[in-house]
Parts: sequence; structure tokens; C-alpha cells
Amino acid sequence: MIRLDGKATANTIKEEIKEKVSAMKIRGERVPHLAAVLVGNDGASLTYVGSKVRSCEYVGFESTLIRLEETITEEALLTQIDALNKDEKLDGYIVQLPLPKHIDEEKILLAIDPKKDVDGFHPANFGRMALELDAFIPATPFGIMQLLERYEVPTSGKHCVVVGRSHIVGRPISILMSQKGLAGNATVTVAHSRTENLAELTRQADIVVMALGIPEYLTADMIKEDAVIIDVGITRVEDKNHPKGYVIKGDVAFDEVAQKASHITPVPGGVGPMTIAMLLQNTLLARQWNLA
Amino acid sequence: MIRLDGKATANTIKEEIKEKVSAMKIRGERVPHLAAVLVGNDGASLTYVGSKVRSCEYVGFESTLIRLEETITEEALLTQIDALNKDEKLDGYIVQLPLPKHIDEEKILLAIDPKKDVDGFHPANFGRMALELDAFIPATPFGIMQLLERYEVPTSGKHCVVVGRSHIVGRPISILMSQKGLAGNATVTVAHSRTENLAELTRQADIVVMALGIPEYLTADMIKEDAVIIDVGITRVEDKNHPKGYVIKGDVAFDEVAQKASHITPVPGGVGPMTIAMLLQNTLLARQWNLA
Repeated sequence: MIRLDGKATANTIKEEIKEKVSAMKIRGERVPHLAAVLVGNDGASLTYVGSKVRSCEYVGFESTLIRLEETITEEALLTQIDALNKDEKLDGYIVQLPLPKHIDEEKILLAIDPKKDVDGFHPANFGRMALELDAFIPATPFGIMQLLERYEVPTSGKHCVVVGRSHIVGRPISILMSQKGLAGNATVTVAHSRTENLAELTRQADIVVMALGIPEYLTADMIKEDAVIIDVGITRVEDKNHPKGYVIKGDVAFDEVAQKASHITPVPGGVGPMTIAMLLQNTLLARQWNLA
Repeated sequence: MIRLDGKATANTIKEEIKEKVSAMKIRGERVPHLAAVLVGNDGASLTYVGSKVRSCEYVGFESTLIRLEETITEEALLTQIDALNKDEKLDGYIVQLPLPKHIDEEKILLAIDPKKDVDGFHPANFGRMALELDAFIPATPFGIMQLLERYEVPTSGKHCVVVGRSHIVGRPISILMSQKGLAGNATVTVAHSRTENLAELTRQADIVVMALGIPEYLTADMIKEDAVIIDVGITRVEDKNHPKGYVIKGDVAFDEVAQKASHITPVPGGVGPMTIAMLLQNTLLARQWNLA
């Protein structure tokens, strides 16, 4: 059984980016610049954004953290977005979600210039991805594709069952894996809450991507021998024996499934750590597309 | 066996649109206005565009046919596109494909204002569709969804196998049928040229959508009893006994498959006739979204 080590792979990607940034500096070019917009003081959001900013610094990007009051109006936030769209020295930016309830998230995301939308959430980027044009791919599916590519997991002609049809994971990974290209050309089935006989489907799959958000849902009896298992689930499960009072569980019953699988992503340390690396990769791409 | 009659359904939709346009006229509103851009003198293109213009007239739309010389430069065509984008009395327009070889089709399609892109080929529309926002859906998948809805074919929880991953049929129909909503909530598998054991998959399917372009590829032994069969294929096959010298064949061996299927679309007279009706529907939507 091969463990698809997202932490190690993410570090490799960060080192690759760091080298490219060094080369840009030597050539006298402006380095990639990422901004993060954070509204309010949500603890988890602060942690995520902080980690993104630190990663930018690590690879040599310029980064800007824009902190706005919880009480900011939608109009004022849109003005801020407009300024970021116009800032020629900014290659990409993200608006950390969730936003306060009085702000229409969809309206904000649609206001982001698709050319700077390094989260890949804008429909213009989604459509470009689906139509096989250059696009920013959302970090989680982009990270999964990288793991499959770098571990040279065969996908062409294989049957992949994606469990979950969310806009940011299930849907895009199902499209990417059935397109031509590396880690592509799979026959892909999208299953979801309405799917009948899910186990019958997953048992046929050469590759299973779990993006359901139900801890330890996929058990060993639901997969075939030597299947490749990608676990996108991250759920906090109460655990009084743990110092934090909880543990992080994926959608896969890891211990039993790992016995039967040929490749598997652990949780934590699998798909999760890849996301920041892919955000950095998108920011580098934004800079390169700007130069071209 | 129920024959999904695209010709009759398309006529019903046209009558519904005609009534809505009459009501708009009575209310003193400007009626929907569609323009079609035709470059050169290709016979098939002339036929298609002529048929679209006549359908506009039939339902009471305003229509404009813009014919341009085969030799027009890309720049001049882009100038024309820009004028159409700015024309406030025009709700939607199409650029008939194929374009002459000296013109970059992708560049032209990307220049169309997504708000007027009633063919639904612009990535911004594709992305909006995939992310479940209001969007112009390409005519063929839109037509299939209408057929399934109007014949009340059950799709929720059913397994649908889509054979073909093209940008204008296979990919969008696979997304639409697995989304929430009418004719949706299916478990959808996308198969294609690289798929291994296609027959094994199609034999499991409650619904098969054939969009491969290989005449009579799907045979009776490849489906299960009472499957729903949607045939998107339209291929001219030489036939010296026919006055035209050819016949039109679908991707389905109709006679034998029809014996076993619960529902089936004939070719011709199935999915094909739906496309113009859905173009009209998109134009009506463009007018309504303009009013809102």
C-alpha cells in the first residue's frame, strides 16, 4: 500500500515555486503578489489566512493581508474588490469565506476579476476549466490532480467514482479526471446523496474520491482490492481522550481501507496540505499569464 | 416503448413561446430580437441559419441575418461582434460555425458578451451552468433536459451513462443530469473513447445518452431491459438506394434497441428538432433577463 503523502508533496511544490521565484528575482522581475481579504475575526479564518500569508513569505512572494471590520457594508467591500481588480501590482487575491451574513457571498465572488481569481471560484474560471482553456483550478481538485500525477497513479481508462457533487470539489475533480491529459482520461461517475446502491458503484471503482463530509463512511467492504482511495473529508469528531477534545476524521475508515487499497491519502496529511501549495501555484500562474 | 418525439415537443415549445411573445406585444413591450452572423456561403450553414431565422419569425421574434464575406478579416469580424454586444435592441446572437480557417473561432466566441451568448458556448455561461446560476444552456443538452422533463422520465437516483465528453453535448448533459432539479439527481457516468468495457457500463445504465458520432454503435445487447435511450448522433451514411444518396443515422441501432428500451429518441425527429426550439427559448430568456 502506497500512502499518498500530501504534506511531503506540498513541500516539494513549495520548493519548486521558491526556486522559480528566486530565478525571477535574479532576472529583475517583479515577484508574484497575492492579497488576502479577511472580514471580521473568525478564529478558523484567521488561522487559514495566516497560514496562506506565511506560505507566501516562505516561497518569496509578496503578500498583503487586508483586514476589514465585521460590520463593513457590502458596498464598501465591493469598492475594495474593485480597487484590487485595478491594482496592477497585484497578481491574484482571495476573499476568505465565510463572509458575515449581511453580505451576499455570490455577489462578492462574481465581482472578482477572473484573471485574479486564484481560488478558481468564479464561473468564468470554472467554465474555462471545463472547456479545457487555461484556468485557475480550485485548490482541492488541483491538489488531487497533482498527487495523482506525481505518484504516477494510472487513470487512463480506469473507472473513478467521485462521491459528492460540490462546486469546489466533487464537480471539478470529476471533470478534470475525465478530460484528456495527465491524471485524466478516466471514466468518471459522480455519485451523491440521491445515488442508489452506492456500495455497488464504489466496489467497481479503480479509484474512489470521497468528498461527502461524513466521517469514516467508506469502509473496506465498499471497495475492491487494490483500489486507489482519495479522501477529501475533514470533519471534527468529538474525542474526550484527545487533548483538543476532538480528532480530525476523513470520509474513509482509514485503518481497514488501507489494508485493501493500493494507494490512499491519509487524513490529516493527504489532500489538505496540498491546498495552500496549489493556491501558491495559481498565484505563480497569474504572474506568468500577466507577463505573457 | 415510448418514442420521445422531439419534433412534436419542439412544436409545443414554439407554440408556448409564440403565446408569450403575443402577450409581450399586447403589453407594448419590445419583442425578443435574435441576430445570426453568417460568414461565407457554406451550404449547410445557410440552411441552418435560414431555418433559425424562419423559426424566429414564426414565434414573433425580431430577427436579423448578418451575412459577411468569406474573406472578412478576424479584426473586422471582432468589430462586428463588438457592435452586436453594444446594440441595446438586440437580446442575443449567434455566430454560425464553422468559421473560415483564417479566423480563430475561440477568439470570436470569447468576444461574445456572455449576456447575449444564446448558444451558451462562452465559458462564462458554461461555468454559471455548472455552478447552478442562471445561464444559457447549449441547445442540445437543454433540449434533452426538456424531453426528459416533458415526458416525465424518472431520473432521480437513476444511473445515467453518457457516452461522449464533448464541450457542447456530453460534458454539459452529464453535469445537468447530476444536478438537483427536474430531470436531475441522476448518478452520472461519463464514458468516452478511452473507456474500457463500455458495454459493461451501458448494460448497468437506466439511461444511456449516446453522443459519440459513430452510426448504430449502441446495439441491443449493450443495454438492459427497459432502459431509456437518448440518441444525439447525426451521421450521414452513404445509401445509393436513397434519392439523396445518403441516410441520416444516429449512434443507436434503432430497430433492435427500440424493442428492448422503455423510451427512445428516433433519429431524425428526436433530439435534433429540439435544438432550434431551445435557441428560441434562450433568446426569450435573454429578453426576460434584460427586462429584470
